[in-house]
Amino acid sequence: MNLIENLKWRYAVKAYSNIKVAEEKVDQILEAINLSASSCGLQSYRVFVVSNPEIQNKLGADSFNGQIRSCSHLLVFAAFTDMTSTYIDDYIAMTENQRGLDAGALSGFRNGLHSYFGAIDTEQKALWATKQAYIALGTALIAAAELKVDATPIEGFSTSVIDEVLGLKEKGLHSAVILALGYRDSEKDYMAAMKKVRLPVKEMVTKIY
Amino acid sequence: MNLIENLKWRYAVKAYSNIKVAEEKVDQILEAINLSASSCGLQSYRVFVVSNPEIQNKLGADSFNGQIRSCSHLLVFAAFTDMTSTYIDDYIAMTENQRGLDAGALSGFRNGLHSYFGAIDTEQKALWATKQAYIALGTALIAAAELKVDATPIEGFSTSVIDEVLGLKEKGLHSAVILALGYRDSEKDYMAAMKKVRLPVKEMVTKIY
Repeated sequence: MNLIENLKWRYAVKAYSNIKVAEEKVDQILEAINLSASSCGLQSYRVFVVSNPEIQNKLGADSFNGQIRSCSHLLVFAAFTDMTSTYIDDYIAMTENQRGLDAGALSGFRNGLHSYFGAIDTEQKALWATKQAYIALGTALIAAAELKVDATPIEGFSTSVIDEVLGLKEKGLHSAVILALGYRDSEKDYMAAMKKVRLPVKEMVTKIY
Repeated sequence: MNLIENLKWRYAVKAYSNIKVAEEKVDQILEAINLSASSCGLQSYRVFVVSNPEIQNKLGADSFNGQIRSCSHLLVFAAFTDMTSTYIDDYIAMTENQRGLDAGALSGFRNGLHSYFGAIDTEQKALWATKQAYIALGTALIAAAELKVDATPIEGFSTSVIDEVLGLKEKGLHSAVILALGYRDSEKDYMAAMKKVRLPVKEMVTKIY
Protein backbone atom coordinates (compact mmCIF):
# COMPACT_ATOMS: atom_id res chain seq x y z
CA MET A 1 0.00 0.00 0.00
CA ASN A 2 1.19 3.51 -0.81
CA LEU A 3 -0.34 4.70 2.44
CA ILE A 4 1.71 2.34 4.60
CA GLU A 5 4.91 3.36 2.84
CA ASN A 6 4.04 7.02 3.32
CA LEU A 7 3.24 6.53 7.00
CA LYS A 8 6.55 4.76 7.52
CA TRP A 9 8.35 7.63 5.79
CA ARG A 10 6.91 10.41 7.89
CA TYR A 11 7.91 11.45 11.41
CA ALA A 12 7.39 14.51 13.58
CA VAL A 13 10.16 16.77 12.29
CA LYS A 14 12.10 18.66 14.96
CA ALA A 15 14.29 20.92 12.80
CA TYR A 16 13.33 22.54 9.51
CA SER A 17 15.54 23.84 6.72
CA ASN A 18 14.56 27.17 5.22
CA ILE A 19 13.33 25.65 1.96
CA LYS A 20 9.76 26.73 1.26
CA VAL A 21 7.04 24.27 0.27
CA ALA A 22 5.71 25.04 -3.22
CA GLU A 23 2.28 26.63 -3.09
CA GLU A 24 0.88 23.96 -5.39
CA LYS A 25 1.74 21.30 -2.81
CA VAL A 26 0.26 23.32 0.04
CA ASP A 27 -2.91 23.62 -2.03
CA GLN A 28 -3.08 19.86 -2.56
CA ILE A 29 -2.78 19.30 1.19
CA LEU A 30 -5.56 21.83 1.74
CA GLU A 31 -7.76 20.13 -0.84
CA ALA A 32 -7.25 16.82 0.95
CA ILE A 33 -8.22 18.45 4.25
CA ASN A 34 -11.36 19.83 2.65
CA LEU A 35 -12.25 16.31 1.47
CA SER A 36 -11.80 14.80 4.95
CA ALA A 37 -14.69 13.00 6.54
CA SER A 38 -16.52 15.00 9.20
CA SER A 39 -19.52 14.19 11.34
CA CYS A 40 -22.76 14.78 9.40
CA GLY A 41 -20.54 16.31 6.72
CA LEU A 42 -20.67 19.61 8.61
CA GLN A 43 -16.94 20.50 8.29
CA SER A 44 -17.03 22.12 11.70
CA TYR A 45 -13.61 23.73 11.56
CA ARG A 46 -11.58 26.10 9.41
CA VAL A 47 -7.91 26.12 8.47
CA PHE A 48 -5.56 29.09 8.68
CA VAL A 49 -2.33 28.83 6.73
CA VAL A 50 0.39 31.11 7.98
CA SER A 51 3.61 31.64 6.07
CA ASN A 52 4.98 34.86 7.45
CA PRO A 53 7.97 34.94 9.85
CA GLU A 54 6.66 37.83 11.91
CA ILE A 55 3.25 36.26 12.49
CA GLN A 56 4.78 32.82 13.05
CA ASN A 57 6.98 34.36 15.76
CA LYS A 58 3.90 35.75 17.46
CA LEU A 59 2.04 32.44 17.17
CA GLY A 60 4.93 30.52 18.70
CA ALA A 61 5.74 33.08 21.40
CA ASP A 62 4.76 30.86 24.33
CA SER A 63 5.64 27.48 22.84
CA PHE A 64 8.67 25.23 23.25
CA ASN A 65 8.00 24.00 19.70
CA GLY A 66 10.39 26.04 17.58
CA GLN A 67 8.84 24.45 14.47
CA ILE A 68 6.00 26.97 14.71
CA ARG A 69 8.53 29.67 13.91
CA SER A 70 10.92 27.78 11.63
CA CYS A 71 8.52 25.88 9.38
CA SER A 72 7.62 26.88 5.84
CA HIS A 73 3.84 26.95 6.39
CA LEU A 74 1.92 26.61 9.63
CA LEU A 75 -1.60 25.18 9.48
CA VAL A 76 -3.92 26.08 12.35
CA PHE A 77 -7.00 23.86 12.61
CA ALA A 78 -9.58 26.14 14.21
CA ALA A 79 -12.71 24.36 15.41
CA PHE A 80 -16.15 25.87 15.82
CA THR A 81 -17.05 26.94 19.33
CA ASP A 82 -20.73 26.41 18.52
CA MET A 83 -22.88 24.77 15.87
CA THR A 84 -25.54 27.34 15.17
CA SER A 85 -28.94 26.91 13.55
CA THR A 86 -27.87 29.37 10.86
CA TYR A 87 -24.81 27.33 9.99
CA ILE A 88 -26.90 24.15 9.78
CA ASP A 89 -29.44 25.85 7.52
CA ASP A 90 -26.71 27.24 5.26
CA TYR A 91 -25.04 23.84 5.07
CA ILE A 92 -28.31 22.13 4.13
CA ALA A 93 -29.00 24.79 1.48
CA MET A 94 -25.48 24.27 0.07
CA THR A 95 -26.02 20.50 0.02
CA GLU A 96 -29.36 20.81 -1.77
CA ASN A 97 -27.74 23.18 -4.23
CA GLN A 98 -24.65 21.05 -4.95
CA ARG A 99 -26.85 17.98 -5.45
CA GLY A 100 -29.37 19.76 -7.65
CA LEU A 101 -32.22 19.10 -5.21
CA ASP A 102 -35.22 21.34 -4.57
CA ALA A 103 -34.96 23.70 -1.62
CA GLY A 104 -36.45 21.87 1.34
CA ALA A 105 -35.72 18.41 -0.05
CA LEU A 106 -33.46 17.69 2.92
CA SER A 107 -35.70 19.18 5.59
CA GLY A 108 -35.85 15.87 7.46
CA PHE A 109 -32.07 15.82 7.76
CA ARG A 110 -32.04 19.50 8.71
CA ASN A 111 -34.58 18.94 11.46
CA GLY A 112 -32.54 16.02 12.77
CA LEU A 113 -29.44 18.22 12.99
CA HIS A 114 -31.36 21.00 14.73
CA SER A 115 -32.73 18.63 17.30
CA TYR A 116 -29.37 16.93 17.91
CA PHE A 117 -27.39 20.14 18.32
CA GLY A 118 -30.20 21.83 20.22
CA ALA A 119 -29.88 19.15 22.90
CA ILE A 120 -26.14 19.44 23.66
CA ASP A 121 -24.39 22.35 25.31
CA THR A 122 -21.77 24.65 23.80
CA GLU A 123 -18.87 22.94 25.49
CA GLN A 124 -19.93 19.59 24.02
CA LYS A 125 -20.31 21.18 20.60
CA ALA A 126 -16.83 22.72 20.77
CA LEU A 127 -15.35 19.39 21.79
CA TRP A 128 -17.22 17.56 19.04
CA ALA A 129 -15.90 20.09 16.51
CA THR A 130 -12.35 19.68 17.82
CA LYS A 131 -12.49 15.93 17.29
CA GLN A 132 -13.51 16.45 13.67
CA ALA A 133 -10.44 18.65 13.20
CA TYR A 134 -8.27 15.74 14.35
CA ILE A 135 -9.63 13.59 11.50
CA ALA A 136 -8.52 16.35 9.15
CA LEU A 137 -5.13 16.48 10.86
CA GLY A 138 -4.74 12.77 10.13
CA THR A 139 -5.59 13.42 6.49
CA ALA A 140 -3.18 16.35 6.25
CA LEU A 141 -0.30 14.27 7.61
CA ILE A 142 -0.93 11.64 4.94
CA ALA A 143 -1.29 14.24 2.19
CA ALA A 144 2.02 15.80 3.17
CA ALA A 145 3.76 12.41 3.27
CA GLU A 146 2.44 11.49 -0.18
CA LEU A 147 3.97 14.74 -1.48
CA LYS A 148 7.19 14.12 0.47
CA VAL A 149 6.57 17.29 2.42
CA ASP A 150 7.68 17.04 6.03
CA ALA A 151 5.36 17.86 8.88
CA THR A 152 5.03 18.17 12.64
CA PRO A 153 1.66 17.83 14.37
CA ILE A 154 1.76 20.06 17.45
CA GLU A 155 -0.43 20.18 20.55
CA GLY A 156 2.11 22.06 22.64
CA PHE A 157 1.08 25.61 21.90
CA SER A 158 -0.74 28.38 23.68
CA THR A 159 -4.37 28.35 22.54
CA SER A 160 -4.87 31.82 23.99
CA VAL A 161 -1.92 33.23 22.02
CA ILE A 162 -3.01 31.64 18.75
CA ASP A 163 -6.67 32.53 19.23
CA GLU A 164 -5.67 36.12 19.98
CA VAL A 165 -3.19 36.57 17.11
CA LEU A 166 -5.58 35.11 14.53
CA GLY A 167 -8.69 36.72 16.02
CA LEU A 168 -10.37 33.33 16.26
CA LYS A 169 -12.81 34.10 19.06
CA GLU A 170 -14.52 36.81 17.03
CA LYS A 171 -14.91 34.29 14.23
CA GLY A 172 -16.58 31.72 16.51
CA LEU A 173 -13.50 29.52 16.39
CA HIS A 174 -10.82 28.19 18.74
CA SER A 175 -7.46 26.64 17.91
CA ALA A 176 -7.72 22.84 18.14
CA VAL A 177 -4.39 21.59 16.84
CA ILE A 178 -1.65 22.88 14.56
CA LEU A 179 0.58 21.40 11.90
CA ALA A 180 3.96 22.64 10.72
CA LEU A 181 4.93 21.93 7.10
CA GLY A 182 8.35 22.25 5.51
CA TYR A 183 11.47 20.26 4.75
CA ARG A 184 13.56 18.58 7.41
CA ASP A 185 17.09 19.72 8.17
CA SER A 186 18.54 16.21 8.44
CA GLU A 187 21.79 17.39 9.99
CA LYS A 188 20.17 19.38 12.76
CA ASP A 189 17.23 17.04 13.38
CA TYR A 190 18.23 14.29 15.82
CA MET A 191 15.00 12.45 14.96
CA ALA A 192 15.69 12.27 11.22
CA ALA A 193 17.72 9.06 11.44
CA MET A 194 15.78 7.46 14.30
CA LYS A 195 13.87 4.23 13.83
CA LYS A 196 10.09 4.65 13.97
CA VAL A 197 8.76 3.10 17.16
CA ARG A 198 5.38 1.37 17.26
CA LEU A 199 3.61 -1.23 19.34
CA PRO A 200 3.45 -4.70 17.82
CA VAL A 201 0.10 -4.79 15.96
CA LYS A 202 -1.05 -7.66 18.17
CA GLU A 203 -0.81 -5.35 21.20
CA MET A 204 -2.74 -2.60 19.45
CA VAL A 205 -5.47 -4.84 18.07
CA THR A 206 -7.87 -7.39 19.55
CA LYS A 207 -9.92 -9.42 17.08
CA ILE A 208 -13.28 -10.78 18.19
CA TYR A 209 -14.60 -13.12 15.51
CA MET B 1 -2.59 12.64 -5.85
CA ASN B 2 -3.78 9.14 -5.03
CA LEU B 3 -5.04 10.43 -1.72
CA ILE B 4 -7.35 13.01 -3.26
CA GLU B 5 -8.81 10.43 -5.66
CA ASN B 6 -9.36 8.04 -2.75
CA LEU B 7 -11.02 10.72 -0.62
CA LYS B 8 -13.34 11.59 -3.49
CA TRP B 9 -14.24 7.92 -3.91
CA ARG B 10 -15.22 7.29 -0.29
CA TYR B 11 -18.45 8.22 1.44
CA ALA B 12 -20.20 7.18 4.63
CA VAL B 13 -21.93 4.00 3.46
CA LYS B 14 -25.51 3.58 4.67
CA ALA B 15 -26.26 0.02 3.43
CA TYR B 16 -23.84 -2.88 3.29
CA SER B 17 -23.98 -6.03 1.19
CA ASN B 18 -23.10 -9.27 2.96
CA ILE B 19 -19.75 -9.62 1.20
CA LYS B 20 -16.95 -10.00 3.73
CA VAL B 21 -13.75 -7.98 3.58
CA ALA B 22 -10.73 -10.25 3.09
CA GLU B 23 -8.70 -10.59 6.26
CA GLU B 24 -5.57 -9.47 4.46
CA LYS B 25 -7.19 -6.12 3.71
CA VAL B 26 -8.44 -5.73 7.27
CA ASP B 27 -4.87 -6.36 8.42
CA GLN B 28 -3.51 -3.66 6.11
CA ILE B 29 -6.00 -1.17 7.53
CA LEU B 30 -4.93 -2.16 11.04
CA GLU B 31 -1.27 -1.77 10.15
CA ALA B 32 -1.99 1.73 8.86
CA ILE B 33 -3.80 2.56 12.10
CA ASN B 34 -0.82 1.32 14.09
CA LEU B 35 1.43 3.63 12.04
CA SER B 36 -0.77 6.70 12.69
CA ALA B 37 0.74 9.72 14.34
CA SER B 38 -0.09 10.09 18.01
CA SER B 39 0.90 12.68 20.57
CA CYS B 40 4.37 11.89 21.99
CA GLY B 41 4.09 8.62 20.05
CA LEU B 42 2.17 7.14 22.99
CA GLN B 43 -0.54 5.36 20.92
CA SER B 44 -3.05 6.04 23.67
CA TYR B 45 -5.85 3.84 22.31
CA ARG B 46 -6.51 0.28 21.26
CA VAL B 47 -8.59 -1.13 18.43
CA PHE B 48 -11.14 -3.92 18.73
CA VAL B 49 -12.18 -5.61 15.49
CA VAL B 50 -15.51 -7.36 15.69
CA SER B 51 -16.75 -9.64 12.95
CA ASN B 52 -19.42 -11.73 14.61
CA PRO B 53 -23.14 -11.15 13.97
CA GLU B 54 -24.22 -11.94 17.51
CA ILE B 55 -21.73 -9.55 19.11
CA GLN B 56 -22.37 -6.88 16.45
CA ASN B 57 -26.09 -7.10 17.31
CA LYS B 58 -25.28 -6.47 20.94
CA LEU B 59 -22.94 -3.57 20.11
CA GLY B 60 -25.57 -1.90 17.95
CA ALA B 61 -28.50 -2.57 20.26
CA ASP B 62 -29.13 1.09 21.11
CA SER B 63 -27.99 2.68 17.86
CA PHE B 64 -29.91 3.96 14.87
CA ASN B 65 -26.87 3.07 12.76
CA GLY B 66 -27.72 -0.33 11.31
CA GLN B 67 -24.23 -0.48 9.81
CA ILE B 68 -22.91 -1.64 13.19
CA ARG B 69 -24.90 -4.83 12.70
CA SER B 70 -24.72 -5.21 8.91
CA CYS B 71 -21.07 -4.42 8.20
CA SER B 72 -18.37 -6.99 7.54
CA HIS B 73 -15.99 -5.82 10.29
CA LEU B 74 -16.59 -3.25 13.00
CA LEU B 75 -13.59 -1.35 14.37
CA VAL B 76 -13.96 0.12 17.84
CA PHE B 77 -11.37 2.78 18.69
CA ALA B 78 -11.06 2.52 22.46
CA ALA B 79 -9.14 5.35 24.08
CA PHE B 80 -7.25 5.23 27.36
CA THR B 81 -9.12 6.61 30.36
CA ASP B 82 -5.80 7.45 31.99
CA MET B 83 -2.14 7.75 31.07
CA THR B 84 -0.37 5.97 33.89
CA SER B 85 3.26 6.20 35.00
CA THR B 86 3.60 2.48 34.35
CA TYR B 87 2.44 2.87 30.75
CA ILE B 88 4.85 5.74 30.19
CA ASP B 89 7.76 3.73 31.63
CA ASP B 90 6.87 0.69 29.51
CA TYR B 91 6.61 2.86 26.40
CA ILE B 92 10.00 4.46 27.05
CA ALA B 93 11.56 1.02 27.63
CA MET B 94 10.03 -0.21 24.35
CA THR B 95 11.38 2.84 22.53
CA GLU B 96 14.87 2.38 23.92
CA ASN B 97 14.71 -1.28 23.00
CA GLN B 98 13.44 -0.76 19.43
CA ARG B 99 16.10 1.90 18.84
CA GLY B 100 18.93 -0.14 20.33
CA LEU B 101 19.59 2.45 23.05
CA ASP B 102 20.81 1.78 26.56
CA ALA B 103 18.15 1.55 29.27
CA GLY B 104 17.77 5.03 30.69
CA ALA B 105 18.97 6.79 27.55
CA LEU B 106 15.58 8.50 27.21
CA SER B 107 15.15 9.39 30.88
CA GLY B 108 14.85 13.09 30.04
CA PHE B 109 11.93 12.40 27.74
CA ARG B 110 10.38 10.02 30.29
CA ASN B 111 10.62 12.65 33.03
CA GLY B 112 9.00 15.19 30.73
CA LEU B 113 6.08 12.85 30.10
CA HIS B 114 5.69 12.11 33.82
CA SER B 115 5.61 15.77 34.65
CA TYR B 116 3.17 16.64 31.83
CA PHE B 117 0.69 13.87 32.59
CA GLY B 118 1.11 14.29 36.32
CA ALA B 119 -0.18 17.85 35.98
CA ILE B 120 -3.47 17.16 34.14
CA ASP B 121 -6.52 15.38 35.52
CA THR B 122 -7.99 12.07 34.38
CA GLU B 123 -10.78 13.70 32.40
CA GLN B 124 -8.24 15.74 30.43
CA LYS B 125 -6.14 12.64 29.81
CA ALA B 126 -9.17 10.68 28.55
CA LEU B 127 -10.11 13.53 26.23
CA TRP B 128 -6.53 13.84 24.97
CA ALA B 129 -6.48 10.10 24.27
CA THR B 130 -9.82 10.32 22.43
CA LYS B 131 -8.45 12.99 20.11
CA GLN B 132 -5.52 10.77 19.20
CA ALA B 133 -7.98 8.04 18.24
CA TYR B 134 -9.58 10.46 15.77
CA ILE B 135 -6.25 10.84 13.96
CA ALA B 136 -6.21 7.06 13.62
CA LEU B 137 -9.81 7.13 12.39
CA GLY B 138 -8.74 9.53 9.65
CA THR B 139 -5.93 7.15 8.70
CA ALA B 140 -8.24 4.14 8.70
CA LEU B 141 -10.71 5.85 6.36
CA ILE B 142 -7.91 6.54 3.90
CA ALA B 143 -6.50 3.02 4.20
CA ALA B 144 -9.92 1.54 3.48
CA ALA B 145 -10.42 3.84 0.49
CA GLU B 146 -7.04 2.93 -0.98
CA LEU B 147 -8.07 -0.75 -0.79
CA LYS B 148 -11.55 0.07 -2.18
CA VAL B 149 -13.11 -1.15 1.01
CA ASP B 150 -16.18 0.84 2.01
CA ALA B 151 -16.49 2.37 5.43
CA THR B 152 -18.75 4.35 7.75
CA PRO B 153 -17.32 6.41 10.59
CA ILE B 154 -19.92 6.38 13.38
CA GLU B 155 -20.35 8.60 16.45
CA GLY B 156 -24.01 7.70 16.95
CA PHE B 157 -23.65 4.72 19.26
CA SER B 158 -24.13 4.00 22.91
CA THR B 159 -20.76 4.25 24.65
CA SER B 160 -22.16 2.47 27.70
CA VAL B 161 -23.37 -0.48 25.58
CA ILE B 162 -20.09 -0.81 23.70
CA ASP B 163 -17.95 -0.35 26.81
CA GLU B 164 -20.02 -3.00 28.59
CA VAL B 165 -20.09 -5.59 25.78
CA LEU B 166 -16.35 -5.33 25.15
CA GLY B 167 -15.43 -4.99 28.84
CA LEU B 168 -13.54 -1.78 28.11
CA LYS B 169 -13.77 -0.21 31.56
CA GLU B 170 -11.86 -3.10 33.17
CA LYS B 171 -9.17 -2.60 30.54
CA GLY B 172 -8.80 1.12 31.32
CA LEU B 173 -10.44 2.05 28.02
CA HIS B 174 -13.57 3.78 26.75
CA SER B 175 -15.11 3.72 23.29
CA ALA B 176 -14.14 6.89 21.41
CA VAL B 177 -15.45 6.34 17.89
CA ILE B 178 -16.28 3.35 15.71
CA LEU B 179 -15.83 2.45 12.06
CA ALA B 180 -17.83 0.00 9.99
CA LEU B 181 -16.03 -1.74 7.11
CA GLY B 182 -17.57 -3.72 4.28
CA TYR B 183 -18.88 -3.35 0.75
CA ARG B 184 -21.71 -1.03 -0.20
CA ASP B 185 -25.04 -2.33 -1.41
CA SER B 186 -25.43 0.23 -4.19
CA GLU B 187 -29.08 -0.62 -4.82
CA LYS B 188 -30.17 -0.20 -1.23
CA ASP B 189 -27.84 2.71 -0.37
CA TYR B 190 -29.46 6.02 -1.30
CA MET B 191 -26.12 7.75 -0.72
CA ALA B 192 -24.16 5.60 -3.18
CA ALA B 193 -25.02 7.75 -6.19
CA MET B 194 -25.05 11.12 -4.41
CA LYS B 195 -22.57 13.83 -5.24
CA LYS B 196 -20.04 14.50 -2.50
CA VAL B 197 -20.73 17.88 -0.91
CA ARG B 198 -17.93 20.10 0.33
CA LEU B 199 -17.35 23.76 1.06
CA PRO B 200 -15.41 25.65 -1.58
CA VAL B 201 -11.76 25.46 -0.46
CA LYS B 202 -11.66 29.26 -0.21
CA GLU B 203 -14.34 29.12 2.50
CA MET B 204 -12.47 26.42 4.42
CA VAL B 205 -9.06 28.07 4.16
CA THR B 206 -7.65 31.49 5.03
CA LYS B 207 -4.09 32.18 3.92
CA ILE B 208 -2.02 34.67 5.87
CA TYR B 209 1.24 35.32 4.00
